Amino acid sequence: MYTRAARRAVPVIATNLERSQGSLLGRLAMANSSQPKRPKVVTLENMNPHVRTMQYAVRGPIVARATAIEKELAQGEKKPFPDVVKCNIGDAHALGQKPITFIRQVIALATYPELLSSDMFPEDAKARARRALSGCKNESVGSYSDSVGIEPIRQDIAAYIERRDGHPSDPNDIVLCAGASEGIRSLLKCVVAGEGKTRSGVMIPIPQYPLYSASLAEFDAVQIGYFMDEETGWSLKVSELERAVTEARKHSNPVAIVIINPGNPTGQVLNRENIEDIIKFAHRENLYIVADEVYQENIYAKGAKFHSFKKVLREMGPEYQTMELASFYSTSKGFMGECGLRGGYMEAINMDTEVFGMLKKLVSAKLCPTTLGQITMECTVNPPREGEPSYELFMQEKTAVLQALREKAKLVAETFDAVDGVSCNEVMGAMYAFPRIHLPKKAVEKAKELGMAADAFYCMRFLEEKGVCVVAGSGFGQVDGTYHFRMTILPSVEKIKEVMERFREFHSKFMEEYKD
Amino acid sequence: MYTRAARRAVPVIATNLERSQGSLLGRLAMANSSQPKRPKVVTLENMNPHVRTMQYAVRGPIVARATAIEKELAQGEKKPFPDVVKCNIGDAHALGQKPITFIRQVIALATYPELLSSDMFPEDAKARARRALSGCKNESVGSYSDSVGIEPIRQDIAAYIERRDGHPSDPNDIVLCAGASEGIRSLLKCVVAGEGKTRSGVMIPIPQYPLYSASLAEFDAVQIGYFMDEETGWSLKVSELERAVTEARKHSNPVAIVIINPGNPTGQVLNRENIEDIIKFAHRENLYIVADEVYQENIYAKGAKFHSFKKVLREMGPEYQTMELASFYSTSKGFMGECGLRGGYMEAINMDTEVFGMLKKLVSAKLCPTTLGQITMECTVNPPREGEPSYELFMQEKTAVLQALREKAKLVAETFDAVDGVSCNEVMGAMYAFPRIHLPKKAVEKAKELGMAADAFYCMRFLEEKGVCVVAGSGFGQVDGTYHFRMTILPSVEKIKEVMERFREFHSKFMEEYKD
Repeated sequence: MYTRAARRAVPVIATNLERSQGSLLGRLAMANSSQPKRPKVVTLENMNPHVRTMQYAVRGPIVARATAIEKELAQGEKKPFPDVVKCNIGDAHALGQKPITFIRQVIALATYPELLSSDMFPEDAKARARRALSGCKNESVGSYSDSVGIEPIRQDIAAYIERRDGHPSDPNDIVLCAGASEGIRSLLKCVVAGEGKTRSGVMIPIPQYPLYSASLAEFDAVQIGYFMDEETGWSLKVSELERAVTEARKHSNPVAIVIINPGNPTGQVLNRENIEDIIKFAHRENLYIVADEVYQENIYAKGAKFHSFKKVLREMGPEYQTMELASFYSTSKGFMGECGLRGGYMEAINMDTEVFGMLKKLVSAKLCPTTLGQITMECTVNPPREGEPSYELFMQEKTAVLQALREKAKLVAETFDAVDGVSCNEVMGAMYAFPRIHLPKKAVEKAKELGMAADAFYCMRFLEEKGVCVVAGSGFGQVDGTYHFRMTILPSVEKIKEVMERFREFHSKFMEEYKD
Repeated sequence: MYTRAARRAVPVIATNLERSQGSLLGRLAMANSSQPKRPKVVTLENMNPHVRTMQYAVRGPIVARATAIEKELAQGEKKPFPDVVKCNIGDAHALGQKPITFIRQVIALATYPELLSSDMFPEDAKARARRALSGCKNESVGSYSDSVGIEPIRQDIAAYIERRDGHPSDPNDIVLCAGASEGIRSLLKCVVAGEGKTRSGVMIPIPQYPLYSASLAEFDAVQIGYFMDEETGWSLKVSELERAVTEARKHSNPVAIVIINPGNPTGQVLNRENIEDIIKFAHRENLYIVADEVYQENIYAKGAKFHSFKKVLREMGPEYQTMELASFYSTSKGFMGECGLRGGYMEAINMDTEVFGMLKKLVSAKLCPTTLGQITMECTVNPPREGEPSYELFMQEKTAVLQALREKAKLVAETFDAVDGVSCNEVMGAMYAFPRIHLPKKAVEKAKELGMAADAFYCMRFLEEKGVCVVAGSGFGQVDGTYHFRMTILPSVEKIKEVMERFREFHSKFMEEYKD
């Protein structure tokens, strides 16, 4: 049969090599075997091509190399740096941020309710744990929750959105998810369809967070990039949206637009008029609005303010009130930084009832998001209130985190921008700087020789020489011929200062080496 | 443009209806709006057709109705039963099973390490929490873990498998996941490809756990059903596998075979020879083996024993030693029943190195499985040992759960089998009875009139009249013209007895009503 024959045609030599890199057991088995070599059933050639094509730079080869270097250091290998600083991902706790006490107390209480009678815990933490447990079947976090999440938590999320926006929110529009990523992926999965010229397209910013490019590749949908304008502080121009959608309509069917605000990796914070213009654009073009608002607590620039897309939409004319909009939030960012606990939610307004039913069916096959991640979200949207015993400590911890981030945002952007051959916009929000590196032609040629993107080559050298792990701009997308990298601003102020020093040394040496 | 025009062609009346069922806010907005009605951007007609087609009965309409009835009861509505008993899903804690103390202690300790200095916790629980934290970046469960999971936990899983099987296991073959479901979905996603006659097919048992049919539909792969033989205690016959694969090769490209052992929903436990025969079949037919072994602790039948596919494979001839096999385990089943915490792992042996790299890339876009779910898995595979302070309580709790399940498995199967018009095989393992209902022709006709599957009609009546929620056999697949339902054996012994009484009353009334 054709396909089986094709499968067997995979060169045996490759299979041997693979085997030799496999598990110890595999190797033993090989050694004992006198059988003819059998090709693998599933190979790179015949596996799912969409999985094969997708890219996810934030956890790509440079990160794997960083982890390997960490191990080499631990084994006593000498390096020209004392440690690896992983600035590749917004992983706050990994970089030293302390958890918010209240969140951890509530989770411990809900997990082990025997603690509810201990005087080690404040009453408000106990009250939140009890509230969460009241929504768990038989009051156990070990029961599956409804696939859309625990009901009192959905109510508290809606109440949070109402307080934030000054407009009603319906708990029935809320779906909890294991981190915003899972929710975003479920939504995108539902809205894309078609083949050939009618294949769905989703507009995403360039540079973008690679979850989007990866998921669209996996779902076989068309990525429609619109460029953020670096010259004007990574602003989002409607003329560029129009260019992108017009171009895309020639070969695909645009169905949705993703906006990341505050921006990742670019850190811009959209103002109200800008958001209005984007909504009007989506209305004209009949697009589903996907608002990635996971950094809504992370605003640093003077005068900047977070406006949720929903709030702005609600304050526009009646013709906009039935537009479909999904917004996402996460426990992984903000001041919480609880990445490992996997909490997040989607608020989807005006979704077609039947489509929403299908979305719920889709998430139900995954049973439910982790209950403890949901409780982390509960603590985030229903924090201690003034007068409650945990209030003071909570505010102190929250303020300290956000204050330090503000300081580091300024420090990092200004330091980068002051270096020759580097320019860096203000980090208005989120958790990243995205400096532009003006690479000499020789460096670009050298990278080409090595078969690498020029900024990936630069970042790999930075890692090997200084132990700092950042992600090349090519992983996020950028204007051709420009080069960037993304660095989180999450390490402590002292560490960030040290990282910036390592950067200055590396950069000037690199530029010297490759100067034209 | 063609696609946009098509989208607008959705009848406006349907859209209005949908809106009127939407959120309160949507309705308010409608009332205030004098705008012409605007169709939704994403509708049932233009959404992802694969999501639309997939079915997941375990959380389908009957469960939604059960939840609605629960609310009606809570609001004081009179019903001919005191409560709803949800026997639709293997959700142990929801049905009254108590969590294992050791698991909850370790999670509380890891979440809130201040408790490590409390004398409320035994030393071995503290040791496990410290071990898990040692694998978390900066010792916080709030850090992202590696996408494949926390390293010491992967090591402990490998050690567990070695103890279980008496054969080596490589931690590099282990990938943690948020419940087995997520891992199974990721693996299936990777191995399926192709279109038309070369579309990948995956063999699954019929009856099956609907995760498989749902995921294959979502991934646009071909479901190749092989029938379990009800007459011989749901045994798995190689002749039937051969029939199914031969048939399937005419219109698809079979790439994998899923075996659920112990069976869900059918509860059979495969013996060693049977497993050998299946492995030989997979070898002959060049299939990737997917062994769903989440019920490995749940064996009740006298003389039955769990044999892992990997153990059996390792004890076969050299020609089998390089076969690709993935096995799955979960914290949701067994004696733990920690469904809400979302812990699970995959052990994938002999996977092509590059394909494994792609699988890791795929899961990395979801960042990581919940750290607390991973720690639940750690406690499962690395339980208290003899001599450690938690050992006695742990064994007592574990034994009590498994002993009660054994008792209920017998009670339920025997009770069903003794009822006229019902036959039920022994529940050898897992957590479900899957009785066959010999429905009268009149009932089948009535269901047809209502546009329902006959067993769904029967189950819905059982729910409405007796408050017991079970899932119709049509959601799992069955031989045409036969009718079944799946019921978990998880409620307490007392409750199970009451449920069986409700069943007897309902069934005899129903049979009387529709007798031929």
